[in-house]
Amino acid sequence: MKYVTGTAERKTADLEELLREESEGKTLRLWGAVHAIRSMGEVVFVVLRRREGLLQCVYEEGKAAFAIKGLREASTLEVEGVVKREPRAPQGVELRLTDIRVLSEPAAPLPLAVSKWKLDTSLEAKLNMRSVSLRNVRERAKFKLQEGIVRGFRDYLYSQGFTEIHTPKIGARGAEGGSNLFRLDYFHRPAVLEQSPQLYKQMMVGVFDRVFETGPVFRAEKHNTKRHLNEYTSLDLEMAYIEGFADVMTMETGFLQYTMELLAKDYGRELGLLEISLPKIREIPAVRFDTAKKLVSEKYRRPIKNPFDLEPEEEVLIGKYFQEEYDSDFVFVTHYPSKKRPFYAMDDPADPRFTLSFDLLYRGMEITTGGQRIHDYGMLLEKLEKRGMTREGLEQYLDTFKYGMPPHGGLGIGLERLTMRLCGEDNVRETTLFPRDLSRLEP
Amino acid sequence: MKYVTGTAERKTADLEELLREESEGKTLRLWGAVHAIRSMGEVVFVVLRRREGLLQCVYEEGKAAFAIKGLREASTLEVEGVVKREPRAPQGVELRLTDIRVLSEPAAPLPLAVSKWKLDTSLEAKLNMRSVSLRNVRERAKFKLQEGIVRGFRDYLYSQGFTEIHTPKIGARGAEGGSNLFRLDYFHRPAVLEQSPQLYKQMMVGVFDRVFETGPVFRAEKHNTKRHLNEYTSLDLEMAYIEGFADVMTMETGFLQYTMELLAKDYGRELGLLEISLPKIREIPAVRFDTAKKLVSEKYRRPIKNPFDLEPEEEVLIGKYFQEEYDSDFVFVTHYPSKKRPFYAMDDPADPRFTLSFDLLYRGMEITTGGQRIHDYGMLLEKLEKRGMTREGLEQYLDTFKYGMPPHGGLGIGLERLTMRLCGEDNVRETTLFPRDLSRLEP
Repeated sequence: MKYVTGTAERKTADLEELLREESEGKTLRLWGAVHAIRSMGEVVFVVLRRREGLLQCVYEEGKAAFAIKGLREASTLEVEGVVKREPRAPQGVELRLTDIRVLSEPAAPLPLAVSKWKLDTSLEAKLNMRSVSLRNVRERAKFKLQEGIVRGFRDYLYSQGFTEIHTPKIGARGAEGGSNLFRLDYFHRPAVLEQSPQLYKQMMVGVFDRVFETGPVFRAEKHNTKRHLNEYTSLDLEMAYIEGFADVMTMETGFLQYTMELLAKDYGRELGLLEISLPKIREIPAVRFDTAKKLVSEKYRRPIKNPFDLEPEEEVLIGKYFQEEYDSDFVFVTHYPSKKRPFYAMDDPADPRFTLSFDLLYRGMEITTGGQRIHDYGMLLEKLEKRGMTREGLEQYLDTFKYGMPPHGGLGIGLERLTMRLCGEDNVRETTLFPRDLSRLEP
Repeated sequence: MKYVTGTAERKTADLEELLREESEGKTLRLWGAVHAIRSMGEVVFVVLRRREGLLQCVYEEGKAAFAIKGLREASTLEVEGVVKREPRAPQGVELRLTDIRVLSEPAAPLPLAVSKWKLDTSLEAKLNMRSVSLRNVRERAKFKLQEGIVRGFRDYLYSQGFTEIHTPKIGARGAEGGSNLFRLDYFHRPAVLEQSPQLYKQMMVGVFDRVFETGPVFRAEKHNTKRHLNEYTSLDLEMAYIEGFADVMTMETGFLQYTMELLAKDYGRELGLLEISLPKIREIPAVRFDTAKKLVSEKYRRPIKNPFDLEPEEEVLIGKYFQEEYDSDFVFVTHYPSKKRPFYAMDDPADPRFTLSFDLLYRGMEITTGGQRIHDYGMLLEKLEKRGMTREGLEQYLDTFKYGMPPHGGLGIGLERLTMRLCGEDNVRETTLFPRDLSRLEP
């Protein structure tokens, strides 16, 4: 009988091993993709692309057991060579090739110059050829940082006693109702794709006290802007036994602080490639919705059109105001109007036209919506009735409250938007692997 | 200006603090839900349910500043009391109550006796009242273990140089085609819900070398069995520069070993509640598909009906065989027939009727499908043609290979099934938070 064990004999080295001081002069084998070939006559530089970065390999005629002719970009190789310090090489080290083995070859020349520092092409072209354009190491780095954000979210919340959950994306009813739902046929029953895990995470907060989920959400909105997607990844949390929605803002601030430290510690290579300096987050200012509107109206001489709504331009100005006056990239805007929030939001007892809720703006763009939720069964029924909403499809959600629920609140963070702002991009599609928008359903 | 910092002043204790030796005799405040009330006359036991477990609180008439009368199960409380060793209490410690504050109250008595050791009700009832039935701590524990499995998957793969990705669930085309696709209208274009992130993770393996994703997948299969779901969570990985599909089996074995250690280390409470003894995984036997069929046919005297298909009963018997003959809960079955695998599977050059692929069976049930994939553009086009498949909707996927791809392979693990087997459950719905099946679209 053959057996599989969990450890494989390692036949090749990784970049870390190659960069160790004691590797100098040693012969190592590595695999990688041919990122670029630069011929200087008798010397040929072959740049290998690996998950950890680029590695300069050098072929010198007469010193290697193979012919370099015929080697093509985008081939994948196993190479053998001698490690040599070389301050001019990208890693400070190069591999003097003694042998190569071609593992695979492309069928056509690359349509994009992925080895250039800056990929010189349109967003459209980049998205159409995603699996090629991301071979550019700077394009790729944005998604490593995105990974770091999600890791930071999970690791921080685990440390705070949260439980990770997986809730269904096909349901009988959307969390927020309305017209922006994708509809489908589910074995001859009408169904929708969930706009948010909201109702499910509330149902689970009575079980686990603190829950989170990182998963896709779906919005059939007909927006065609630089910041909207019709499918995105939402970082969601819900926490019980809060004293107010400030507890939720505290949790988010803690997550952001933890994540910036994690990125600085483990993602330095990517931050360097993209020349990103991380925002310093000691504390985040919090301002009421109505106050924020007044402040920017006064400073930027802009009349308030509607006291119960926030225009995108106002969001931008609020961001600008707190950048200028408080040197902060982030600002919590609190007490959003009740009309602008879903039925489950808790109204402010001091003035029920507003809610105990918040948005977090990052350089003038909303990246989070959160707040305290209604936990009292009677209050919830009253709110539904006041809004003229039916209980249909909400039976099990409402039963959760009927059978007792702790005070709680939570939030949802748009992962692609947060990554976009961190990377200084101006279009959310730049930080989405495979965006879904009004016109884009492929690749 | 108000500021939010990332750290909150802690006004209440958690269970860990309460259980510390130095807490004996101290007065602490905690929150929790009333799990059970047992009145013994002048002494009343109030069992609080918290995310970490149950805590016995004791009310003695005349010793507390409040009246216990009127306190109801499923209320949520902030309690104050003196910590006292008590070997008969669940945690070895109890809290002698001095004060309580009611945070919320239910509107109706609980429909299920959640405080019983074993929740004595049907699966149907449990699923219909998910947010109540999971308040039973043994029901809840299964989903903590599920969390541990996902954590183990991610943490192990991070340590192995994998990058986490997020791929779209709405697409123009399914990874495997066929009739088991949920279809929807995407802004007047036909779209489907992805059956698997397969095509996307392959497209990204040429970028990051090693990728993984943990997310929902959708199968419109009309199966109504104990092991099928129409939406489930798939743990997916794809890795480049493999020498063969054995490298993928090695990675899975490493993940399982790591995860069992993680569960033993961090989830001992839940394992204890459910009386689970974790499988020991030193090595996993691997047997060819055709050999496995022959072995069970001989041992259990069962004629082979179709040499190119595996019936569920045969899977069960293969599991039984390796349990009996090799004392192993797990077995890799390799070299599945080509007809049973999707177009992207690599055929075995030694016999193209079979593929370089595997399933992992856990006590006779398939929990993983994996294998080596075709990486050569020409070979891929040939396979499509041989199957009479169109290239439509596959253009960008195919371009990935045209522009060069390393040899690679991967796998997908059904999270709910793995949890089900680990917990010794016989229905996958027992280990699915909110199952979606032929009849179940709610809650």
